[in-house]
Amino acid sequence: MPELTVPTLDFWFDFASTYSYPAAMRIAPLAVTAGVTVRFRPFLLGPIFKAQGWDTSPFNLYPAKGRYMWRDLERLCADLALPFRQPESFPQPSLLAARVALVGLAQRWGEDFCRAVFRAEFGEAGRIDDSATIARLLTPFGIDPHDVLAKAQSEPIKTRLRDETQAAQQLGIFGAPSFVTADGELFWGNDRLQQALIWAARAG
Amino acid sequence: MPELTVPTLDFWFDFASTYSYPAAMRIAPLAVTAGVTVRFRPFLLGPIFKAQGWDTSPFNLYPAKGRYMWRDLERLCADLALPFRQPESFPQPSLLAARVALVGLAQRWGEDFCRAVFRAEFGEAGRIDDSATIARLLTPFGIDPHDVLAKAQSEPIKTRLRDETQAAQQLGIFGAPSFVTADGELFWGNDRLQQALIWAARAG
Repeated sequence: MPELTVPTLDFWFDFASTYSYPAAMRIAPLAVTAGVTVRFRPFLLGPIFKAQGWDTSPFNLYPAKGRYMWRDLERLCADLALPFRQPESFPQPSLLAARVALVGLAQRWGEDFCRAVFRAEFGEAGRIDDSATIARLLTPFGIDPHDVLAKAQSEPIKTRLRDETQAAQQLGIFGAPSFVTADGELFWGNDRLQQALIWAARAG
Repeated sequence: MPELTVPTLDFWFDFASTYSYPAAMRIAPLAVTAGVTVRFRPFLLGPIFKAQGWDTSPFNLYPAKGRYMWRDLERLCADLALPFRQPESFPQPSLLAARVALVGLAQRWGEDFCRAVFRAEFGEAGRIDDSATIARLLTPFGIDPHDVLAKAQSEPIKTRLRDETQAAQQLGIFGAPSFVTADGELFWGNDRLQQALIWAARAG
């Protein structure tokens, strides 16, 4: 009997990334329809931007592009019926949220936590870089936030996030969200989500 | 009797811009379906990039992004059944082609000329920056290429292109292709063409 394999797609994102928000909110139901298993892979864009010579988001470095991005995101969220409110501070440090997500993705609440972070940040203009907010976002999952936060700051998780960021860079990832299929095809941007799922389903 | 107005959409592009190619090839039939009149508005990205501190395309400044773009464009053209061949030189000087396009857009052959330039450049990997090639691309239109080339180098046309580039910058345009509706809404990128047409049709 042939082995049954389910096609997979890696979803690389940074909690600081604006277009990662609609991608994170849409990907699960679209993947079910496409028959594809998605792996959430948080990483940090900061080191990758630094390697390109940027010390902040290109949306801040190039104001015309930044103004456009916020308007575009607002229109996009309206079309998708997603809440949208521009945060006062951008980009937010995403290190803590990414580490907590890695803890959760090894358990059962990781994806729901990721969506909660994005909703708080870009749907409600909240801060996501302090322990109190992260603890509040963990409440629905019936786990001890203090245990999770301690684990998130442990050496294995810190190393894991550094390794994931390096892996992203080695895959040729230069922005977020990015999608990578099992056969190594890279798709960049929320606009490429459906195309990436189609490719993943074909690639098997 | 109320005046009948047809919604319009301005299509801003640079002949050097890779993603302007699929946009230019797709826009006419999509606009007919949407009931929108499109105005082709060639401009030069160079001065706008320079104002952002770039002396060449960001696809050359950031190699990972550049490698991705060529692969993405190849996939995109395959999906659209558009010919694609990566030119040896990128970006190509688009000044001459843009000036000739302005001559043609004031006559009847402008849009066909624009499509012919894009096809030669990104469908056949041809050069578009020399008079001989431009003259060859003008052949199907039954006009004297020498007259057109002379007109393209005249002061009024040179001034016109400078003014158009300045107008693009004042509209907040920072890349190509871009689409601007009658009510001033800006959409950036080939991926936003359909959304721009929908907005234009609503805006009237």
